[in-house]
Amino acid sequence: MTAVYREPIFDVAQLGHTELLTTTLEQSAEFFTKVYGLYPVAETADSVYLRAWNDDVLTSLKLTASDRAGLGHVAWRASSPEALDRRVAALKERGIEGEWIDDIGHGKAFSFVAEGGHRMEVYFETEKFRAPAGQESYLPNQAQRYDPHGVAAAHIDHINLLVPDVVGARQFQEEALGFKLRERLVPTPENEVGAWLSLMTKAHDLALTREPADADGRLHHLAYAVETREDVLRAADIFLENGTPVEFGPAKHSRTQGFFLYVLEPGGNRVEVFAGGLHIYTPDWEPVTWTTEAGGRSTAWGLDVPPTFHTHATPVL
Amino acid sequence: MTAVYREPIFDVAQLGHTELLTTTLEQSAEFFTKVYGLYPVAETADSVYLRAWNDDVLTSLKLTASDRAGLGHVAWRASSPEALDRRVAALKERGIEGEWIDDIGHGKAFSFVAEGGHRMEVYFETEKFRAPAGQESYLPNQAQRYDPHGVAAAHIDHINLLVPDVVGARQFQEEALGFKLRERLVPTPENEVGAWLSLMTKAHDLALTREPADADGRLHHLAYAVETREDVLRAADIFLENGTPVEFGPAKHSRTQGFFLYVLEPGGNRVEVFAGGLHIYTPDWEPVTWTTEAGGRSTAWGLDVPPTFHTHATPVL
Amino acid sequence: MTAVYREPIFDVAQLGHTELLTTTLEQSAEFFTKVYGLYPVAETADSVYLRAWNDDVLTSLKLTASDRAGLGHVAWRASSPEALDRRVAALKERGIEGEWIDDIGHGKAFSFVAEGGHRMEVYFETEKFRAPAGQESYLPNQAQRYDPHGVAAAHIDHINLLVPDVVGARQFQEEALGFKLRERLVPTPENEVGAWLSLMTKAHDLALTREPADADGRLHHLAYAVETREDVLRAADIFLENGTPVEFGPAKHSRTQGFFLYVLEPGGNRVEVFAGGLHIYTPDWEPVTWTTEAGGRSTAWGLDVPPTFHTHATPVL
Amino acid sequence: MTAVYREPIFDVAQLGHTELLTTTLEQSAEFFTKVYGLYPVAETADSVYLRAWNDDVLTSLKLTASDRAGLGHVAWRASSPEALDRRVAALKERGIEGEWIDDIGHGKAFSFVAEGGHRMEVYFETEKFRAPAGQESYLPNQAQRYDPHGVAAAHIDHINLLVPDVVGARQFQEEALGFKLRERLVPTPENEVGAWLSLMTKAHDLALTREPADADGRLHHLAYAVETREDVLRAADIFLENGTPVEFGPAKHSRTQGFFLYVLEPGGNRVEVFAGGLHIYTPDWEPVTWTTEAGGRSTAWGLDVPPTFHTHATPVL
Repeated sequence: MTAVYREPIFDVAQLGHTELLTTTLEQSAEFFTKVYGLYPVAETADSVYLRAWNDDVLTSLKLTASDRAGLGHVAWRASSPEALDRRVAALKERGIEGEWIDDIGHGKAFSFVAEGGHRMEVYFETEKFRAPAGQESYLPNQAQRYDPHGVAAAHIDHINLLVPDVVGARQFQEEALGFKLRERLVPTPENEVGAWLSLMTKAHDLALTREPADADGRLHHLAYAVETREDVLRAADIFLENGTPVEFGPAKHSRTQGFFLYVLEPGGNRVEVFAGGLHIYTPDWEPVTWTTEAGGRSTAWGLDVPPTFHTHATPVL
Repeated sequence: MTAVYREPIFDVAQLGHTELLTTTLEQSAEFFTKVYGLYPVAETADSVYLRAWNDDVLTSLKLTASDRAGLGHVAWRASSPEALDRRVAALKERGIEGEWIDDIGHGKAFSFVAEGGHRMEVYFETEKFRAPAGQESYLPNQAQRYDPHGVAAAHIDHINLLVPDVVGARQFQEEALGFKLRERLVPTPENEVGAWLSLMTKAHDLALTREPADADGRLHHLAYAVETREDVLRAADIFLENGTPVEFGPAKHSRTQGFFLYVLEPGGNRVEVFAGGLHIYTPDWEPVTWTTEAGGRSTAWGLDVPPTFHTHATPVL
Repeated sequence: MTAVYREPIFDVAQLGHTELLTTTLEQSAEFFTKVYGLYPVAETADSVYLRAWNDDVLTSLKLTASDRAGLGHVAWRASSPEALDRRVAALKERGIEGEWIDDIGHGKAFSFVAEGGHRMEVYFETEKFRAPAGQESYLPNQAQRYDPHGVAAAHIDHINLLVPDVVGARQFQEEALGFKLRERLVPTPENEVGAWLSLMTKAHDLALTREPADADGRLHHLAYAVETREDVLRAADIFLENGTPVEFGPAKHSRTQGFFLYVLEPGGNRVEVFAGGLHIYTPDWEPVTWTTEAGGRSTAWGLDVPPTFHTHATPVL
Repeated sequence: MTAVYREPIFDVAQLGHTELLTTTLEQSAEFFTKVYGLYPVAETADSVYLRAWNDDVLTSLKLTASDRAGLGHVAWRASSPEALDRRVAALKERGIEGEWIDDIGHGKAFSFVAEGGHRMEVYFETEKFRAPAGQESYLPNQAQRYDPHGVAAAHIDHINLLVPDVVGARQFQEEALGFKLRERLVPTPENEVGAWLSLMTKAHDLALTREPADADGRLHHLAYAVETREDVLRAADIFLENGTPVEFGPAKHSRTQGFFLYVLEPGGNRVEVFAGGLHIYTPDWEPVTWTTEAGGRSTAWGLDVPPTFHTHATPVL
């Protein structure tokens, strides 16, 4: 690769939280609390706020009643107040118009629509989670006592969005927010259909894959992490015992090498249970290009991908 | 915490490589290749250069014949050439004198002695590993074909150095290189005896613990990572089958929550096999202070620490 | 070994249930239900009956209020009614006097005191567990829906009893009940201090180790199994989060190769969480003799055994 | 179930060894040694004899050059010489004609053709494996030093044979050899298409599934066990790194609850890597009947079964 090496930008640190829309708020909230294993932390007329047991913030998921499923917004946390200012300036330089909002769990956030049609936020001020009496872990470096229920999703991990133009959308994220391109799926030289991007060292905080329909702003899936591959295997049994069919997995992804499992929550949004995955500490990591059908397969071990995985997204069209 | 939040520095990206000294070069090289599972990549009159199967660089370990065991040097890779310049400037501002050197596997590196007496390098130019024909993995995001032998240590992970003054040494690392303090062990308020620091998002790239003897510059241990806790359990059997006694573990650390196993290589240097551990994406992570004896124990589950773990270091005094 | 090979006896099939005595019935019952993860199934004035989620019988553990901790009795289930008759005849031939009793969960059982001083039962008629509506697993080959709480001990596994004369006590079990000797610990040729015996193919259903005190009839530990080593590692965290200190483990035993973890329940009885272990299908398995101190160590990886493990038993003397 | 309970027969103890036919002996032997991880122990003009590292006998697999792939024979080891005599008598009572043969690794064996067309042997005398100097494990209860290569299949586990009449074939095995029926797949009441049978306490030593073609005597697959589910996951990567495509898995079976992975060896015979699975200690286990399509699926988590799994067998017709 003869590309000139550019200094990486570390102004955005992490996937902070997301908002999912659902037409069945009560059932979705029950799924995320009883089966997926999250905890409710706040409620408004239209929304339920949740967190995972090892999230160190008040909330990482907002479920909002709507007339359609899909992504409300995805919010990225900046590394510092100064870094936030730099990113907002970079967005504005690109002609992005946004507005400053706030919400339960965080202070002022710059809200905007990214290339590809998804609403995003960048923010720094956040409310940390402090375990109430009796919920502290015996390990002070852990957000909460480990007392698992359901799948016990541990913390928010990454999100996969569908975009009509993968190259355009990922360049937007690279330039505006400082995402690093880690891997890309390019079945033919002219045709990049997937991009895996990360903020710091994860295999991906954000995946952008090509929208198969005539739509924009759709969600492919939201993922929380668990600690081990065994936890993903256990999750499969727990989903089945709770009447939640597994759509795909457990298996190992070829991109990211993460161990995965996908289900649909009652509102129709796809959620993943994820473990492992590469950690990339190499600052000048050369993006991996998956070109051939063989090398390009979605699963490391060749497991067939169910057709719904390529067609279902929210909102359902 | 009323501390003013400072913008984190991400100028140094990773632990690049280390040099270990040994009085028994041949036996040490045999241990690291046959038992620990590394690969030799180069050799000079006094040194053997090695890499782990999933290191993406030519070499992460240099073994050098010496009249004593211990650390030759530890080398940190900068995020970019510009970042390297900034760190060298910061070192010089602190009155650190150093010199520019180079070696097999990397270009110009600024070599200096850090507070606490250890020789360190900062550098950017590095030689990437390209798997030779027949050694490529079927997964192009992996440095080398997975064909494990011995413990199959996968990639370099972190280092633990003994320092007479933990607070002084860790402040040096925070300020000069941009290390972030993640956890610290403070049995009594005046007495910080351990500090766990990281460059990007790991639980630690560098641990500094208090030197029990009248010495400086000593090594407590060097750690390579494996993918899963099961790999650490397997490593225990493999060490025993190869006549290498386990000093400590397998068990779970309280600090970092990593799963560990320690042995001594034939030269007397302590090496660890490590899996898991926290990943900290929170940019304003509040350092965890372990104060009480109960909460301060070394292992999460209360396993007794063998006395040698607190006394043995290299060079042996 | 020049011993003449005798046809193995398979008249006794499994460890059916045990009764533990406790001076703190309420706390013991709370521990076994909330922390160890069992389910209460019946209650009398002095006893609480429990089962593990994957026990296929009504009850595998009876907790009984007493003025001392220790073993109430251990009960072995015969392979058939005819096999039960044969074993009772064999016991009577050896001069053992017993009586026929019954209890919640099983029909007529022959109750007797075995060599070594422990009360035992042999029986066949047993009440199977039928999951009530809503508790059925989606897998019909599983006793109950997998909805884990606490450690989620899965099924009764084995018991370890202290006996003044190991050779005498194990020959009694071999001849009277058909136990097979799998391994024995013999530090010096004249001195067998441990024997691991099984009914069918497990590494052990019964371990007999030498009583260090002037006593008989004491319990060393009772063990339930979980499916994987990862489940044992998880159990360690769950015990700690619930304020139950780990006495020993998690680690791998040398004898049986099982993966273990020991705690004391509030009544003082030692209980284990166990996974894996050899399965011995070889009908003419030659008992393994562990003779040397090196080879004879209790843990495969050399972990130190806490002194209490060799001295604490119930009743406490 | 109102069936009268019959005393179980334990005259046959284990799956001792099998013989696989192959048209590509050299490549098959290379696959089983280099990829599957077995060891060659003997060789004749037409056959190679192999063992797994934790088999305690000289050989568990004989590969024989032939003009077709498939099963040469499967051999069951009796519990004692007397038990062997009883089983041979039972076979002869059923009109089975056989002959006494012997081979490398075992003494006299009664060779016969079972209902369903497969050649079988019953025998007792066997040659135990004694690890040569340098190959002894540090654990004397282990057949050989753990020094894994390839998949490191640990010991022979079970076999799956196709039979035109499942009920007839399994009743033959129940009555003649003492197999216990554990589970059966019965999509419609008149139509038993699968039976899982075991000798002692395993989920299955023998599976009989319905032959889809007009044939008899065909092999569906031969399975060796590894210790953990993680070992099966690792095996998937190792197969792929060695150019062996995975046909099916890794995933969890509904019947047996074992964790599985299937590949075809170069001769076309299907081999499995298997871990876990139920252990059934209940002597009067009520066979589990899987009736509905939902409950009857092959994998616990609903993974689609590749069509070849239902059609490919050896010999290929």
